Amino acid sequence: MRTIDWVDGMVRIIDQTRLPAELVSIDLREVDELVVSIRSLAVRGAMALGVAGALGMALAACRSAERDGDLDADLAVAADKLSGARPTAVNLSWGVEQVRSARAAGAGVAELVAAALAIRDADIEVNQALSDRGAQLLAGARRVLTHCNAGALAGVEFGTALGVIERLHAAAPLEMVYVCETRPLLQGSRLTAWELGRRGIPHRVIVDSAAAGLMLGGQVEAVVVGADRIAANGDVANKVGTVSHALAASYAGIPFVVAAPESTIDRATESGAGIRIELRDAGEVLAMAGQRVAAPGSTGWNPAFDVTPAALVTAIVTELRTIDGRADDAIDGRAEDAIDGSPGDSVDASQGPGSVAQPE
Amino acid sequence: MRTIDWVDGMVRIIDQTRLPAELVSIDLREVDELVVSIRSLAVRGAMALGVAGALGMALAACRSAERDGDLDADLAVAADKLSGARPTAVNLSWGVEQVRSARAAGAGVAELVAAALAIRDADIEVNQALSDRGAQLLAGARRVLTHCNAGALAGVEFGTALGVIERLHAAAPLEMVYVCETRPLLQGSRLTAWELGRRGIPHRVIVDSAAAGLMLGGQVEAVVVGADRIAANGDVANKVGTVSHALAASYAGIPFVVAAPESTIDRATESGAGIRIELRDAGEVLAMAGQRVAAPGSTGWNPAFDVTPAALVTAIVTELRTIDGRADDAIDGRAEDAIDGSPGDSVDASQGPGSVAQPE
Repeated sequence: MRTIDWVDGMVRIIDQTRLPAELVSIDLREVDELVVSIRSLAVRGAMALGVAGALGMALAACRSAERDGDLDADLAVAADKLSGARPTAVNLSWGVEQVRSARAAGAGVAELVAAALAIRDADIEVNQALSDRGAQLLAGARRVLTHCNAGALAGVEFGTALGVIERLHAAAPLEMVYVCETRPLLQGSRLTAWELGRRGIPHRVIVDSAAAGLMLGGQVEAVVVGADRIAANGDVANKVGTVSHALAASYAGIPFVVAAPESTIDRATESGAGIRIELRDAGEVLAMAGQRVAAPGSTGWNPAFDVTPAALVTAIVTELRTIDGRADDAIDGRAEDAIDGSPGDSVDASQGPGSVAQPE
Repeated sequence: MRTIDWVDGMVRIIDQTRLPAELVSIDLREVDELVVSIRSLAVRGAMALGVAGALGMALAACRSAERDGDLDADLAVAADKLSGARPTAVNLSWGVEQVRSARAAGAGVAELVAAALAIRDADIEVNQALSDRGAQLLAGARRVLTHCNAGALAGVEFGTALGVIERLHAAAPLEMVYVCETRPLLQGSRLTAWELGRRGIPHRVIVDSAAAGLMLGGQVEAVVVGADRIAANGDVANKVGTVSHALAASYAGIPFVVAAPESTIDRATESGAGIRIELRDAGEVLAMAGQRVAAPGSTGWNPAFDVTPAALVTAIVTELRTIDGRADDAIDGRAEDAIDGSPGDSVDASQGPGSVAQPE
């Protein structure tokens, strides 16, 4: 079953707000419905959002054609709505732009849908390639920690950080995966634990703030997380809490690895300082299970992401390459290697969203 | 209103599990009732637990006398039950031992009760003294962050970390106190936010893992927390999550201050490695508001504390002195200064639980 797919001219998603209690799919016929689903995190995760952006544009094209609308005007409106739904997630607007640039090159409705479906199909291949690379890098680690959900539920059929963990476990059974619950919305305890359970991988859910103590106590051998946006200097924006794990991993002397597709790299943003951090409703912090827990009258502050400085990142693994987060100009220097030289055992650099995403 | 008190031969506590929804006191007549209240965190916080240990022994003495029991045997049983209720919290067994050593010195029931009440009375004075010291140290900081609840609810009438914050605010209004919600039991959003709200101090509740991003983003000027146990080398055991804040503060170059009474210092424990970390029920992580949130079948891991290495602590402020956490042998070296030399503007070193607590 796919996290996000295209069925009968509609976008079908697993409604992740209802997991792990129930596995329910919903079909979305209008761009506005998809925008609501993106905002509510019914569909979430960097790669799935890239696919959502592309399929959302395909939705816009199909509906425009059915209503005999102005295709370019309708696509422009849809692009703004979709890209604005989660402003920090670069993949979302990346997916939107892929379809938009196909239109700029003269594509009609059927070709726009085909372009979006190609992005969906590339996602699985890209994730498998970067997961293989990450597992090679961390070979031997048997106790790992992850944050949020960078699993199959964050892509189409296969995850990034959880893809690495799945590959590690396939090579030799893992002793323990520590799953940070990921407040406020608990993607870790709800989604990552659910995925690991289905795959039979031993795991324990912890509160996010228990991670540092476990690392300093020697109970964790590696940290692997996904990314929502990677700046040109290698700074990584990911779910709030990621940087605290990077700090602890650095202090404990264990690797901190970011597993993310090339499409997550935003060369237009020089450093983490240029990444706009999405602020979400403070109610997510002040209430739990719909019930207020904070003191009456108290307000909250709810940034959805944080930025991990490149200096704290051991490596970024993509479908094309392994980037040393601490090297100056790592991303552009290595990008040339990968594109002009040999990408090693990875997928062809001319395929997949990575190479397409690179401007110029 | 006092967090914990002695009324008509019983221990009266504010039931903190019912805050912030309602302010309810309960009277405890038996040691076993107090042990249940300690375990359930109805009464919690380092200093309040010290007082609870002492008043619990007074309860045991009074009940023993009423039932014409064997006072020494009854005190021994009570001491074991009370000290074992929260094994990481050194103040709890410290309070127990104060009354026990009074008995060893020949005290009768009335004198044992008087010894316990003296500990209750010393708590307020000690907290005020260390709060003054901490506020002097952090003078000028207008945006501070705290974790868990080291407030009046963690003592008798006046807090440690929140005492520092209250004194800072009295000197010049604070811009913002960032309150970490403190999963799993939310002492931050429930108790600290409630206390700050009552005092009119501006504050925002954040998820624990948002702290590092705020610090690295320059939104926090100082971190101040309490402590549950401080080893002889200056390593600090405190609520799980504390060490991640210390790591972030160190990286961000802002002070990380521990405000705690001398009674929290455990000279018998050489370093943090010797501190036993209490593991609590994993259900606290897997459920929220009584409702399971984690994936079915997933297990949890729930350490209640972590250890912050002395090297990450800017200073420990007690009622007697300011200890540089990073200096070798800081605690013993400075203890001599404080006891033999001048304790400055602080309380008399010969009074309060601090000096009594020092073995030798």
